[in-house]
Amino acid sequence: MAFKRRARAIRADHPHHEPHTPSHPLERLIFFSDAVFAIAITLLIIEIQPPDLPRGASVHDQLQALVNLAPHFLGFFISFGVIGAFWVGHHRAFSFAHHWSPKLVFPNMLLLCAIAFMPFSTSYMNANAWQLVPTAFYAAVLLITSLLNIWLVHRATAPGVADEKSDARLIIRTRSRGWAVATGAALALVIAFVSPVWSQPSLSTIPLWLRLYGRIADRRADAMFAPEGT
Amino acid sequence: MAFKRRARAIRADHPHHEPHTPSHPLERLIFFSDAVFAIAITLLIIEIQPPDLPRGASVHDQLQALVNLAPHFLGFFISFGVIGAFWVGHHRAFSFAHHWSPKLVFPNMLLLCAIAFMPFSTSYMNANAWQLVPTAFYAAVLLITSLLNIWLVHRATAPGVADEKSDARLIIRTRSRGWAVATGAALALVIAFVSPVWSQPSLSTIPLWLRLYGRIADRRADAMFAPEGT
Amino acid sequence: MAFKRRARAIRADHPHHEPHTPSHPLERLIFFSDAVFAIAITLLIIEIQPPDLPRGASVHDQLQALVNLAPHFLGFFISFGVIGAFWVGHHRAFSFAHHWSPKLVFPNMLLLCAIAFMPFSTSYMNANAWQLVPTAFYAAVLLITSLLNIWLVHRATAPGVADEKSDARLIIRTRSRGWAVATGAALALVIAFVSPVWSQPSLSTIPLWLRLYGRIADRRADAMFAPEGT
Amino acid sequence: MAFKRRARAIRADHPHHEPHTPSHPLERLIFFSDAVFAIAITLLIIEIQPPDLPRGASVHDQLQALVNLAPHFLGFFISFGVIGAFWVGHHRAFSFAHHWSPKLVFPNMLLLCAIAFMPFSTSYMNANAWQLVPTAFYAAVLLITSLLNIWLVHRATAPGVADEKSDARLIIRTRSRGWAVATGAALALVIAFVSPVWSQPSLSTIPLWLRLYGRIADRRADAMFAPEGT
Repeated sequence: MAFKRRARAIRADHPHHEPHTPSHPLERLIFFSDAVFAIAITLLIIEIQPPDLPRGASVHDQLQALVNLAPHFLGFFISFGVIGAFWVGHHRAFSFAHHWSPKLVFPNMLLLCAIAFMPFSTSYMNANAWQLVPTAFYAAVLLITSLLNIWLVHRATAPGVADEKSDARLIIRTRSRGWAVATGAALALVIAFVSPVWSQPSLSTIPLWLRLYGRIADRRADAMFAPEGT
Repeated sequence: MAFKRRARAIRADHPHHEPHTPSHPLERLIFFSDAVFAIAITLLIIEIQPPDLPRGASVHDQLQALVNLAPHFLGFFISFGVIGAFWVGHHRAFSFAHHWSPKLVFPNMLLLCAIAFMPFSTSYMNANAWQLVPTAFYAAVLLITSLLNIWLVHRATAPGVADEKSDARLIIRTRSRGWAVATGAALALVIAFVSPVWSQPSLSTIPLWLRLYGRIADRRADAMFAPEGT
Repeated sequence: MAFKRRARAIRADHPHHEPHTPSHPLERLIFFSDAVFAIAITLLIIEIQPPDLPRGASVHDQLQALVNLAPHFLGFFISFGVIGAFWVGHHRAFSFAHHWSPKLVFPNMLLLCAIAFMPFSTSYMNANAWQLVPTAFYAAVLLITSLLNIWLVHRATAPGVADEKSDARLIIRTRSRGWAVATGAALALVIAFVSPVWSQPSLSTIPLWLRLYGRIADRRADAMFAPEGT
Repeated sequence: MAFKRRARAIRADHPHHEPHTPSHPLERLIFFSDAVFAIAITLLIIEIQPPDLPRGASVHDQLQALVNLAPHFLGFFISFGVIGAFWVGHHRAFSFAHHWSPKLVFPNMLLLCAIAFMPFSTSYMNANAWQLVPTAFYAAVLLITSLLNIWLVHRATAPGVADEKSDARLIIRTRSRGWAVATGAALALVIAFVSPVWSQPSLSTIPLWLRLYGRIADRRADAMFAPEGT
């Protein structure tokens, strides 16, 4: 009996080791996802071809060649930020997840597929900056990615997967973040049809949506969990 | 004595730490495999070259260029699904594995070699869509991969490697999955010689084989483990 | 009570499992960083195109083609050393970190962005060896990377993140290392404008700065933590 | 006191958590190495360009294009085997390592540098199959890699790093393996100068050296650890 109690005490610190369940499936899913995120984010750079200048090129020509790459650099930084933000969101959502569920596999795989697609849409956008179709394509891929992200975050923080001791308020707030990114992507898609040049800059409204939706989530949580004694 | 018993209780939660055995070899094998799967699945995208349109290209031309890439996108999604499915199978099989065996190394390395080969056969297929040789080549690589997968799954769930507490029925069912993928790949290979266009679509029969073989496996398990009291 | 005490004893060995905190966020950050470092360092090689010689090329021609690649090989080894050194620094700094802090995410992401950028600045430098702009660009990217590194190392070893039992002297010494790399990079940047050929070789002064700054750090630590009894 | 004893019992199962030492440095080194091995082994494939056939190419032409790639496929499989074998060696050597030592960092980094270089020497070899310089270059890189490997394996299994409970016979045997690979690489290098075509095939003698050196190691171990009672 003492043996059993002790084993349980230890298990509490290793929440993924559930009794009668194969060990580690959740950690392996997270691990695989991290690797895909890391590869996609690092592959972004190999799409940029360095200029190959003739031996005696003047400093002016050398600088000009670098300046010509500016949209590529900008595209790299934007997509690095985008993939990085999705990774942070994945990290945040799965920090609640303590129990394995096979239901996580499919939405996670679809999200990773969308993330692995980002180097293409980035490179396509960079090679044809500010044209209608590539700009709309980039925003559309981002919108699909953010919707898949919402789906996955929902499953990773759902009852049965999330740690029972998780703060329900934090879960509501975390879920609201996905909608903020989706709103920014939808805005960028609409603007692409009006004025492609302003499509990517409109992604910079995402922090505003994050704050707005965060407040709404807090209020909703306040209503749901009225403080004790009121 | 109490000391020893306690240590054993803890060890039960860390099945890979076997007494008198170097620690972690199984986890490192899984880790390395995950990394190879993740890289192969993410490299698929860099095979697709984005179209580089002239500055003033019409929206129609831009859309046309994107539509021309359709077979490449389709190839990306199919191969992403294929590698993803093999990863899920690896994940499922190794969730049973609790004891290290050097016998896992060779079949695992061969499977990873076949997985690492997928970006080539995908890109070869995409560049020459629906021609006989590339289509048959793709299906043949897939068939070899699925046979290596069957071999590895067998070893990872074999007595001496699998957790002693594993559900024997689940192991029988897991092993049956590998045969379903192999059947789909064999069918795609045969059809490639008849009508290359229908080779890849025939992979969509895999879910049917999964269900069929799953039922056969369940029946076989029923026969082997007749319910107590009969 | 005994139950609780035991759980705490175990927790002491798993410092990242803090009570009432989602598990593993620190390990996942480290893991993701390792993957990005590993990919960036390995991608360096794919920038080097192997010479493709005609069938009957003489041994002399074959050797000449290899010798022509010398600046590329040199660039590969320098950048491998640079990324490797940043990884070692990350490894050293995070070996002190025992508590998760969301403040780590942003500087870590920026450092990874700079690391992911290295294959580009390496390849740009290699393709245009010893010209002013590419040389200064390489040194400038390195300087920015080293400043981001200083920022991150500071946060990873700050109170609230660092293990309370960490040796304060070691932390002071670790932080001093970042400044040594930044000094070498700043020197390389200045020299790029004077004589591009000597810019990268001047990075070899970094070990000197490491020793010098290490001594200064030790003295500062001596002053701060005067030995007991004086 | 009981508290302390218990903590020590747990620590015995987590050998990398040494008291007063930052946690996990060994695991992170292994992790980073695994990622570099995995990326290098998977990048091998992207060096092979798939043939791009005209729409109406005959089956004969399609097969011919595939056959022309045969040396590339062979090169891929040989290098996959080589990197895979070094990974298995790393895995085996570090399964003995239980204590962190900063002395591991430098030889490990050098080995990883040689591994990351493999996609280049493979692709160089493939593009110029059976010519003297590329063949000798490939064998020379392999020889350097195997010497770095010997150095690292030695450090990872040295007293102070290796688990005190490690079987000394197994360590002697493990170390002998590195010399077998080095012998094969040295032979391939010598043969490259005599007859380039036979250089890579001579690597297939490595299993023979493994067996031979293994026996010598066993005899040496027998002499050192004469059975008790003799």
